[in-house]
Amino acid sequence: MPQGYVCPFCLLVKGIEDEKDKLIQSKQQDIVYKDDYVTALIATLWWPNNKAHVIIVPNKHFENIFDLPIEYATRIHQLAQKISFALKECYQCDGISTRQHNEPGGSQDVWHYHLHIYPRYYDDDLYRTDGNLSSSKERQNYAEQLRTWFEINELNNDN
Amino acid sequence: MPQGYVCPFCLLVKGIEDEKDKLIQSKQQDIVYKDDYVTALIATLWWPNNKAHVIIVPNKHFENIFDLPIEYATRIHQLAQKISFALKECYQCDGISTRQHNEPGGSQDVWHYHLHIYPRYYDDDLYRTDGNLSSSKERQNYAEQLRTWFEINELNNDN
Repeated sequence: MPQGYVCPFCLLVKGIEDEKDKLIQSKQQDIVYKDDYVTALIATLWWPNNKAHVIIVPNKHFENIFDLPIEYATRIHQLAQKISFALKECYQCDGISTRQHNEPGGSQDVWHYHLHIYPRYYDDDLYRTDGNLSSSKERQNYAEQLRTWFEINELNNDN
Repeated sequence: MPQGYVCPFCLLVKGIEDEKDKLIQSKQQDIVYKDDYVTALIATLWWPNNKAHVIIVPNKHFENIFDLPIEYATRIHQLAQKISFALKECYQCDGISTRQHNEPGGSQDVWHYHLHIYPRYYDDDLYRTDGNLSSSKERQNYAEQLRTWFEINELNNDN
């Protein structure tokens, strides 16, 4: 993490939309779930056949897997399971893949730990395609579907 | 998971090498760490520029992220962090990436939850290359390095 790094995920968690951020450009409306530990949002970078995948971040700043405390890792993976169920139901996808990158040599480009959860489809060619920036309007419908899923399912589970 | 599925990871955890398994062909010597909950092994399928990556499995059979209990997820991600440190030190890699697949439409091909931990290098082209089966002899040296790392570091941490 460079000195003086303005962390886009920290800002997002705090409710701030940074106009100067040209990399991820996340908006408050992209957030689909938030509790005291973790936040899930629709990614702004979309893979052509795996649109509107989800990113989970710890609310507190940790740079990568090397400094992520186990209590946050637990919350992240508890939420990853819920997001997987939500994506299956809302997107009607065929499967789920997760990935997580650490350090520049490991394809990390935002210096705040984040886990990607991709909806998968047969022959989607996820690993041979590249991500492109989506518009906030494109993300809106997906975010609403997932927020509704959490409203229904979290109530049912009495969480 | 097909009916009557003989699970190669369940056999491996029990200390059995299945001669009939033509898919993953893991050997006992591939195991680099094992405790009551989780096992880590050198993967048999190697990516050309990311050789000898590590797979973590729960010792109990769970098919995928949908049925993985949180106590196992926690142990898996605690071990993933240790493996990340170990790979950095033993392989001198530039970064770490993890990935995890669920269901046939999500690129899963062994029906027992498993997390891949890849050593990453600048320009390794991980997502544009394919895995090829390694020989047990090729894996031996890597496995020994990681086992030695655990011997030294687990002792230091008094675990």
